Amino acid sequence: MMTYKSEDIKKMNSIELLKNLYQLNNATMAELVAQTSFSQSSVRSILKSLENKGILTLQNVDQSSGGSCPGRYTFSKEHFQILSVFVDEGTVDLKLKDILDNTIFHKHIVCSLNEELENIIITITEKYVVNCISIASSGVIQDECFYTDHGEYMTKHEIALNLKKRTTIPIIIENDVNSMMMSIKAKQSCNNLAYIYMSETGIGSAYYVEGNIIKGHQSFSGELGLLPYQNQTINEVIASKSAKEVLEDMFVLILVAVAVTIDPEKIIIAMKKDNNLSLTKIKEGVSKSLSKRYLINLEKSTNPLEDGLDGLHYLGILKLFDLYTDYNREKRNG
Amino acid sequence: MMTYKSEDIKKMNSIELLKNLYQLNNATMAELVAQTSFSQSSVRSILKSLENKGILTLQNVDQSSGGSCPGRYTFSKEHFQILSVFVDEGTVDLKLKDILDNTIFHKHIVCSLNEELENIIITITEKYVVNCISIASSGVIQDECFYTDHGEYMTKHEIALNLKKRTTIPIIIENDVNSMMMSIKAKQSCNNLAYIYMSETGIGSAYYVEGNIIKGHQSFSGELGLLPYQNQTINEVIASKSAKEVLEDMFVLILVAVAVTIDPEKIIIAMKKDNNLSLTKIKEGVSKSLSKRYLINLEKSTNPLEDGLDGLHYLGILKLFDLYTDYNREKRNG
Repeated sequence: MMTYKSEDIKKMNSIELLKNLYQLNNATMAELVAQTSFSQSSVRSILKSLENKGILTLQNVDQSSGGSCPGRYTFSKEHFQILSVFVDEGTVDLKLKDILDNTIFHKHIVCSLNEELENIIITITEKYVVNCISIASSGVIQDECFYTDHGEYMTKHEIALNLKKRTTIPIIIENDVNSMMMSIKAKQSCNNLAYIYMSETGIGSAYYVEGNIIKGHQSFSGELGLLPYQNQTINEVIASKSAKEVLEDMFVLILVAVAVTIDPEKIIIAMKKDNNLSLTKIKEGVSKSLSKRYLINLEKSTNPLEDGLDGLHYLGILKLFDLYTDYNREKRNG
Repeated sequence: MMTYKSEDIKKMNSIELLKNLYQLNNATMAELVAQTSFSQSSVRSILKSLENKGILTLQNVDQSSGGSCPGRYTFSKEHFQILSVFVDEGTVDLKLKDILDNTIFHKHIVCSLNEELENIIITITEKYVVNCISIASSGVIQDECFYTDHGEYMTKHEIALNLKKRTTIPIIIENDVNSMMMSIKAKQSCNNLAYIYMSETGIGSAYYVEGNIIKGHQSFSGELGLLPYQNQTINEVIASKSAKEVLEDMFVLILVAVAVTIDPEKIIIAMKKDNNLSLTKIKEGVSKSLSKRYLINLEKSTNPLEDGLDGLHYLGILKLFDLYTDYNREKRNG
């Protein structure tokens, strides 16, 4: 159990302020007060403390107000360079981007979760400033390892543990579909989300409910492909390249299952190739099954890999917000 | 957006301490320090402040320690008398019970969510000390009203709003299956729960994930009865009094849907009459659908009404913990 201390409050408030500044890109103190409804004195105190640490920069660029020139706060981008590493079926995307969305490096290579990839990551960290490494792959995460499922057995991938022996840069790992989902969360303040990703071989999904990614007790949360559909599983239907009409009907079942459990505010269906699934037909099917009262907020994404990289970038930023506001540790260290 | 203040920390810590004391029934300061891992000084300060307010009572009853007689804290039960009102298909259970589990009053009557019930509740509050009124019914809760679904239209029940005009006692309302689920939460520290209630006419469910009851964006969370099953809905299968084997197979689909979305630590199946459903057969079916790796923690309850009353009682206690630790309001009022 956790006891909350006054440093914890300062931390929670600082992170809220940083998240708001991230949405705004840059802002004056008055704009942040308006956006957060924090008191002016608490916004000032947090901003000063982050400025003193070098995390935020004050720029006097606002000439539009006619002489009063209130300073604009922005992120010190050299403290927020995130290397996102998205592993997908034998290829890897590596993207180094700062918090102001400047891409410093981007490469798509043929590789997988192995030592070669570890060497490439280390080389990048030696050449560029990297403040955080965010890695996504399919599979279940436990004890900082990825476990990929091969039916009878699970394979363990220790990339994060191995990298930690070679660098002190903070490393986070996340499931691939969870990272894709977090790209939506990065752009919108939506608090209840579902992201459903259909690959060539099956379907996986991710849920964000009231501030948390749902992890599930046994890591089965998201395994929609295991739902039965006409004497097969959903994964079998997808792997056998079923017709568009079958896939649409299958998505009706999936969306009904998601609606009667999680009931999210927004649902994204993502696939690499747009196979012309009709969202209108799917919506009609769901409405027929559930009720006319149920209004589904359904969108398509045809760039799940880009979503994955964006989500990893955002998770890296959140990790740095967390690290840079660790007032407890600072107090302990004097 | 919320700014956290030091009163908020004191409140969060006090509520954690009260929840721990509730699990223990009564405890010495040392026992609470051990149970919570709070510092001794913070436990002492919280206990003193609650004792001064009359919420807790100090009893010097611990003679077993051989002379040192450390005081035992317990709840001042006269501040924790909760009237639980469970409305179920034309009958209502009313139970007044204190936090130490003493039943003061219990009656089962033929009634529904109407003015007669409001009068009965008011009469009880005039005769007994009642610190909180907790009401459960089927239906969706919005703006402190119950909305019950009649397919084409929804009926609004304003019992809580009406009672608020007649009494100042705090009133909470909750969906019936959510209250049933909270009885499990009251007894166990399980953080990921699903409670599935099968009535004569259909099925409803409730989910507790990481500290919150999942409400869902459009109140469809829990409506498992709308899942399709062999060209019918689950609700239609139940209403048509299907055979035990059909119900077992149907439960396999339901549990798979719950596992691949919420993936809870524990799942309860509740029904008023035990129709001898075989949990073993259901578990086998789920394991076949999902994977041998998935170990389901499945239990049966044959007393959903009792669960509902217990859950309402616990929700009332949590409401009082919240009210009695409102240090912000006390500060504002001087």
